Amino acid sequence: MKPNTGFGTVKWAVGLFGMSVCFFLSGTVYAADKAEPTLTEAQFEQAKGLYFQRCAGCHGALRKGATGKSLEPKKTRKKGQKRLEKIIALGTEKGMNNFDDIFTKEEIKIMATYIQMEPPVPAEMSLSLMKERWKTHIPPEDYPTKPEHSLNWENFFLVILRDEGKIGIIDGDTKEVVVKVDTGYAIHVLKESSDGRFWFTQGRDGKMSKIDLWMNPPKVVADVQVAYDARDVAVSHYGEWKDKYVIGGAYWPPHFVILDAKTMEPLKVVSTRGVNVDGEYVNEARVAAIYNTPHAPTWIVAIKELGQLWQVDYSDIDNLRIEQIDSHKFLHDGFFDPTQRYFQIAANASNRMEIMDSVERKFVASIETGKMPHPGPGANWIDPECGPVAGTTHLGEGKITVWGNDPKDHADKAWKVCYSIETDGPGLFIRTHPKSDYVWADQTKHPEPEVQQSVVVFDKKTREIVKVIRVTEFPKAVAVHQEFNKDGTEVWVSVWARGEGDRAKGEIVIYDAKTLEEKARIKGLETPTGKFNVYNRVHHVT
Amino acid sequence: MKPNTGFGTVKWAVGLFGMSVCFFLSGTVYAADKAEPTLTEAQFEQAKGLYFQRCAGCHGALRKGATGKSLEPKKTRKKGQKRLEKIIALGTEKGMNNFDDIFTKEEIKIMATYIQMEPPVPAEMSLSLMKERWKTHIPPEDYPTKPEHSLNWENFFLVILRDEGKIGIIDGDTKEVVVKVDTGYAIHVLKESSDGRFWFTQGRDGKMSKIDLWMNPPKVVADVQVAYDARDVAVSHYGEWKDKYVIGGAYWPPHFVILDAKTMEPLKVVSTRGVNVDGEYVNEARVAAIYNTPHAPTWIVAIKELGQLWQVDYSDIDNLRIEQIDSHKFLHDGFFDPTQRYFQIAANASNRMEIMDSVERKFVASIETGKMPHPGPGANWIDPECGPVAGTTHLGEGKITVWGNDPKDHADKAWKVCYSIETDGPGLFIRTHPKSDYVWADQTKHPEPEVQQSVVVFDKKTREIVKVIRVTEFPKAVAVHQEFNKDGTEVWVSVWARGEGDRAKGEIVIYDAKTLEEKARIKGLETPTGKFNVYNRVHHVT
Repeated sequence: MKPNTGFGTVKWAVGLFGMSVCFFLSGTVYAADKAEPTLTEAQFEQAKGLYFQRCAGCHGALRKGATGKSLEPKKTRKKGQKRLEKIIALGTEKGMNNFDDIFTKEEIKIMATYIQMEPPVPAEMSLSLMKERWKTHIPPEDYPTKPEHSLNWENFFLVILRDEGKIGIIDGDTKEVVVKVDTGYAIHVLKESSDGRFWFTQGRDGKMSKIDLWMNPPKVVADVQVAYDARDVAVSHYGEWKDKYVIGGAYWPPHFVILDAKTMEPLKVVSTRGVNVDGEYVNEARVAAIYNTPHAPTWIVAIKELGQLWQVDYSDIDNLRIEQIDSHKFLHDGFFDPTQRYFQIAANASNRMEIMDSVERKFVASIETGKMPHPGPGANWIDPECGPVAGTTHLGEGKITVWGNDPKDHADKAWKVCYSIETDGPGLFIRTHPKSDYVWADQTKHPEPEVQQSVVVFDKKTREIVKVIRVTEFPKAVAVHQEFNKDGTEVWVSVWARGEGDRAKGEIVIYDAKTLEEKARIKGLETPTGKFNVYNRVHHVT
Repeated sequence: MKPNTGFGTVKWAVGLFGMSVCFFLSGTVYAADKAEPTLTEAQFEQAKGLYFQRCAGCHGALRKGATGKSLEPKKTRKKGQKRLEKIIALGTEKGMNNFDDIFTKEEIKIMATYIQMEPPVPAEMSLSLMKERWKTHIPPEDYPTKPEHSLNWENFFLVILRDEGKIGIIDGDTKEVVVKVDTGYAIHVLKESSDGRFWFTQGRDGKMSKIDLWMNPPKVVADVQVAYDARDVAVSHYGEWKDKYVIGGAYWPPHFVILDAKTMEPLKVVSTRGVNVDGEYVNEARVAAIYNTPHAPTWIVAIKELGQLWQVDYSDIDNLRIEQIDSHKFLHDGFFDPTQRYFQIAANASNRMEIMDSVERKFVASIETGKMPHPGPGANWIDPECGPVAGTTHLGEGKITVWGNDPKDHADKAWKVCYSIETDGPGLFIRTHPKSDYVWADQTKHPEPEVQQSVVVFDKKTREIVKVIRVTEFPKAVAVHQEFNKDGTEVWVSVWARGEGDRAKGEIVIYDAKTLEEKARIKGLETPTGKFNVYNRVHHVT
């Protein structure tokens, strides 16, 4: 599926005007010399598409760097074609993936050349263009007034089938796939209406869809494109604004968009370009993540490159109040404490978890954890010594860090590291359930199959790993992301098959949350990643 | 005096790489053909400087247009060299000045070519660069603890001597020039500390200076450059933050900067790039004006191209609260109502005065006035029928519009036009004093000498013009800007002499506020414009 990347109307001058292309960037002029790396127009287009899909997330569309290093031509040209090809193929010790099993040899060559050329600047997107791209499939007045099926939709799992461009809706009671809803190009995340009936998706291509779980089968009722590259979405859940607005956050253009949650009509666009916490202007200041705050009519919008958390008040969008809360770079993803007041978010380039108070709308604390924390939807539980705690996995090392998060009754432990656990490899997601004795963490980012295919389970009381579960042995597949079912008796883990020709052979493996034994496998899922249990997400069960 | 325009480090490729320069702008590629207009490097530099000084204010550094039209090459090239030269020389009926008495014939030619070439993008300015450009001349611990002179400094007038790069400090009692303080390139405006002792200037080149009136003579105690092109400044006057912060607002880079008012150390930079009220991203979203709000710990920052008033809360600058209040394009300058709660500001491209509530931090009303309202520091008075009213002059027509501004006791008249008065020509400034029966307005923007050299005086009660005063008959001089003295018995009007070789022959003409007869002339002032009486500005006497 080819995303609309915002480059559509651009006719590239490369190859047409050849050797003396000049670029005016702020404060400097770069005049390309005869040795300038070149691609054919077709190769350039191919590289541009691959870069957007595989590289821009970490390195940025303008290649200024964020989670990944800066790839500006002044830097890449020093390395040269051969060295760049090697880095792309094999990765680096500093955290860059190997791409020799993702790109062909020819693609690696083209990419090494492409990143030595000036990055093209993608287009802006106006509110009026978004309105043109807004489609109503079923108008709100035709929505059913009660569920059209008798399934237990509160125990549905909504599963991102990334490369299939679909959301798999799986009945948590029967383990059957109810429907695969076509949402288009790779969905990054989805969030729920206050009752869990409607789900709002955000695609990596900036397309947002609204799904109604009451329909038989569940359907997309409206969609709209709000960006060319995007990552998150949230709904207004507070007071009189409950389910009134949806917000979508974008990587490019760097902005967020407030939409009517009923119709999906885009209403307002706010740029997130700004000055970072070091006092430097950032053109590509991307919205990493967005969260609804249960105690205020606001969303938290994490601006990755600024190192700022913007608390955006939706109670009056014509006089839009925003608190720009300074924390650290580069912000990524986070979760609330059990009281839903304090928000805990990774600043992964700073090796910290940042804590902010959504009631006072201000920064609270910064906790040094490990190398590049990445909690995903996170985990909160009670520790016998520290009291209420939360934990995170890390992208940069095999470590789980646990900190106190109860400033009211455990003030001396709050926002300090309680303990850490060494695992075999770096991971993406950590998860638990109040009824479970255990915490689960994946190790997806480790290069070795036996590690990346295994998840670790540790005991909340003893703080010890009680089991390492090999979820799959399928070649090139990885185990990723855990989600509990509604009553906390099962843990669902995704198996992402990524070998050529094997992408549809993904599955979800279901474990008994008490015995840790395998219970079932749901097969035939193309690249399943994040899973969202309706009840747990509505009730903030972490 | 040559301003640092932020282009200093740029080596222009023009003339070096000649004919096949390509530009990648959002969504389009422009490939210059053989017929591309060219300048030598020296001519390009000259045109760049002239454009910054004379054109960028209305047309924008990136030439997207604001008060003036868009001058992007795709538009200017359609007109061609000859037509552009004619427009620059003679002006247009739509409000463009004639420049044949400002530019030489050769300069007009160069400018006509320059605006057909792609606009160079000036540099950004980081907080660390500002800190490098921060200079302390006298440290705060060495400031005097009481006035070092016995002059009546509360009746000082601080006068912008624009092309001299100085602030003239004139004793309102004796009419003598106390000192001319060297503040560098063209000052645009200055604002006071809460007691009127310290004054903070904003230069068009982004240099901010702090002046201490208690010193003998008054001196600049610190300065700093916060931008390459700037327009306004304000001080924090509220509660415990009284005189703690200064804010400077810039045209380029589009941002505002919060500084320590004691030392002038820059503390925080906030970008004003954003999405305008029509839903389109604006890269050059400039700070037109900034005001301290007497009833809240905030400043109002008017973002010209966005059509938004940002109410910036300085009570916690690490968790910076901003209300982005939607109004209309393009915002310019404004003033408070007599209660200091409602702020009244011109949206000159929309032919409206916009009203916002600084207590509730929200938009209130929009009043259609006349063509391009421009009130300067404004005027409030009591009308026999409408009660409390305010008025504005217009850039686009000879008209004074008066509206009700007392929603409490005259709700039916509030934020509606009460009446308007026709004058002979468009003007820049309107002014009155509570003790005066009259309101004064200039007609500076009219092309004819007899009009632009005259100010009109009308009666608050009868609403009729009682006198048109010819302030000067000096060739090419204009009368501009009125300011009352401390006790409201005198009105001071500037005479701006602009003929070649005559620039130092400006003067201030002083009138008796009751008899309207001339009392005195203060001569030998180079291009005097805005005048700030210490007492009236501290006490918000409008």
